Amino acid sequence: MEENLAAEWNRKSWVESANDSSCGFPLQSLPYCIFTTEDSRPHPGIGIGDSILDLQICNRTGLFEGLPRPVHTACDARTLNPLIACGSAAHAMLRTRLMHLLDEAADPSTRHSVAAALVSKQAAKLLKPVEPANYTDFYASIDHATRVGELFRPDNPLLPNYKHVPIGYHGRASSIVVSGTEIRRPSGQTKPSEGSLPNFGPTRFLDYELEVALYIADGNPLGEPIPIREAANRIFGISLLNDWSARDLQAWEYQPLGPFLAKSFATSVSPWVVPFAALAPFRVPARICPSFDSSDGPLPYLFDGIDQYTGAIDLTVEAWLQTPAMRAAGRPAHRLSEASLAELWWTPAQLIAHHTSNGCNLLPCDLLATGTISNREDSSAGCLLELTVGGAQPIQLPSGETRRALEDGDEVILRGICRRNGYPEVSLGECRGIVAPAL
Amino acid sequence: MEENLAAEWNRKSWVESANDSSCGFPLQSLPYCIFTTEDSRPHPGIGIGDSILDLQICNRTGLFEGLPRPVHTACDARTLNPLIACGSAAHAMLRTRLMHLLDEAADPSTRHSVAAALVSKQAAKLLKPVEPANYTDFYASIDHATRVGELFRPDNPLLPNYKHVPIGYHGRASSIVVSGTEIRRPSGQTKPSEGSLPNFGPTRFLDYELEVALYIADGNPLGEPIPIREAANRIFGISLLNDWSARDLQAWEYQPLGPFLAKSFATSVSPWVVPFAALAPFRVPARICPSFDSSDGPLPYLFDGIDQYTGAIDLTVEAWLQTPAMRAAGRPAHRLSEASLAELWWTPAQLIAHHTSNGCNLLPCDLLATGTISNREDSSAGCLLELTVGGAQPIQLPSGETRRALEDGDEVILRGICRRNGYPEVSLGECRGIVAPAL
Repeated sequence: MEENLAAEWNRKSWVESANDSSCGFPLQSLPYCIFTTEDSRPHPGIGIGDSILDLQICNRTGLFEGLPRPVHTACDARTLNPLIACGSAAHAMLRTRLMHLLDEAADPSTRHSVAAALVSKQAAKLLKPVEPANYTDFYASIDHATRVGELFRPDNPLLPNYKHVPIGYHGRASSIVVSGTEIRRPSGQTKPSEGSLPNFGPTRFLDYELEVALYIADGNPLGEPIPIREAANRIFGISLLNDWSARDLQAWEYQPLGPFLAKSFATSVSPWVVPFAALAPFRVPARICPSFDSSDGPLPYLFDGIDQYTGAIDLTVEAWLQTPAMRAAGRPAHRLSEASLAELWWTPAQLIAHHTSNGCNLLPCDLLATGTISNREDSSAGCLLELTVGGAQPIQLPSGETRRALEDGDEVILRGICRRNGYPEVSLGECRGIVAPAL
Repeated sequence: MEENLAAEWNRKSWVESANDSSCGFPLQSLPYCIFTTEDSRPHPGIGIGDSILDLQICNRTGLFEGLPRPVHTACDARTLNPLIACGSAAHAMLRTRLMHLLDEAADPSTRHSVAAALVSKQAAKLLKPVEPANYTDFYASIDHATRVGELFRPDNPLLPNYKHVPIGYHGRASSIVVSGTEIRRPSGQTKPSEGSLPNFGPTRFLDYELEVALYIADGNPLGEPIPIREAANRIFGISLLNDWSARDLQAWEYQPLGPFLAKSFATSVSPWVVPFAALAPFRVPARICPSFDSSDGPLPYLFDGIDQYTGAIDLTVEAWLQTPAMRAAGRPAHRLSEASLAELWWTPAQLIAHHTSNGCNLLPCDLLATGTISNREDSSAGCLLELTVGGAQPIQLPSGETRRALEDGDEVILRGICRRNGYPEVSLGECRGIVAPAL
């Protein structure tokens, strides 16, 4: 198994730029995107090295002959939704075909046809890849939950349900935007001082949240849960996600039904969707790998041996900040945090099994996000709420500036990359957003 | 104004059954539905008296000539979504045309053509009318919030934000089903006793929630709030909604991010969508009608004089229960509660203005629900959680049975009707659901 994996990941592409092991877009990744060029309307592509392979051209020139019919029409669509709806069997066939077409062993005439469908990344504009049907946001980082809990309940930071229930809530699907979209500072109500009316105005504690998005390929009928053992196979791919948050609005509105307007003004996603299959070498044991009877252990409906030993993903995620002053001075962005996705309390499969355990139906193109990704170290905290200890300790930037919250003009950049010795790196690309002033 | 309204509402239809003032489907209502007959695939219709007017046939026989082109294609659709997406100007034109075609003053040849498009309600099956893009559930009944709050905080039932913030949360859109769909009892985690693991199994406190749904016609671009004065005009129509709830799952999972699996297993909607324009005679002053500086009063972004004086809707909603024993004995359903929508703390316009106040974009076909509709009297409480005081005081049924929660085979029936002296009644129809045993 491991040998097969290594052999597959040693293969090279005739697209030379894909063979640099730190390029992030090797033959084995092939992330999906929606892109446009000067001459074309939005349509699907995949990333390979410094290029995009145009799936519309591939399809029109017969390179996808023999693939299921829905794949052909999906190559002309303006989003990845029709492609995702083709189902995981079709995705596997398409992936095999693409790897074959781009492999260095491809014959000269194939290379010639495929080369005609390559577009330079520089010439392409990346658009929103998926219109998510439903969006669910989890709270899967126990280190985030603990650090946030400490702000409000220093003696008892973690709520009693945390280690048993994958906590989540429904997010707002309509306001999901692609990386690069300006984020307008939202207005809203904040808590009044004793005896006066609440304030209504621009948020004074705008924050980001560093998260990973999972797109669902195959859903389930209403009333029929997805067993934990099948759950990971339902994932189409992953992206980066920034769950922008207005902490002052959130503090005033969230009781008793949870966050609402503090989050629904915008959520950014990265333009690349990395196939879940491309993460195979980076799958590692879950953070908790207990037996059935451990008091911390997952309940049976959340437990699967294979998932416990290979269900987590060793993906390094980072948040970076560039202020207007840094931009003006030509200073690079400053890294605020770095954390591994493998340290989440729950695996992706557990999130899916839990979500459907009451019979709730997932649909193709649903988006499930992890919640803020933080690890144990304070430097790994994936939002300003944690990094500034609730706003009490502003962070110092190398430019001499400080921040307790995002200011207008600040740009937040999320990055994600999978690394493993002997394997080429797999990049999730970037998820960027600049804060625009309130209306 | 009032005289014009009365004159319009005095008009009769040549469809005789529509002229019985208690039929609930007068010429002035014309609720939308999606229906199918033995001979036809699902398509749109409107209710008039004891009949359905088939919009597909009307369109094909030229009765909609001159209406905007998108209306024509919408008449062939399997849901009301394309019709709703036509926008409020087109809806007004269609409504005027329909009232004209069905008015007793219509000429004989028109009557003849229209009569050919009438289908008996008995011969039609009603289907899910709208595929909601996003679903938001509010908490707009202060009496519900107070009674539920008393269960947990007897001394301080109402949270400090309640009178200022229209509390709401994102619901699950994928599991919305139409009246008549069986509701499978969900399983989930419940709170463990000290020192043991949580339970996982079928809910033991299944409940209903009596609510009203608002479907959005015209949305807003991301970042551009809908002002309160324009908000009511964005509503396409209203329906009944049952927000089925598993109270034991909810109690264990809801901190800190709100209800999730306790609600997402199913939400029922009624098949008729009553045009918001049909509610004009039943609009009444909001429950609170204060000036700007009242300490209870809405903040300026939630205040509009017209809305305060005409923004509430005097709609009577009722919840009924029929147990399997009652069904077997031929006993009718038993009424559990009756309440007026006018007693909500917030008007529909305030819910929309608040929802978009942070820039969140509403889309055509979004569904906004009111939350449980209860009034001051205990007999008006719109869910079992209230009626049984948290399950502590089972209710007595005329059959001799008791209930502290819904049992398998129980059917919940929601009804809604607008009544006003001198005006024909406008019915919302029914929203029904029978509880099926857990898997």
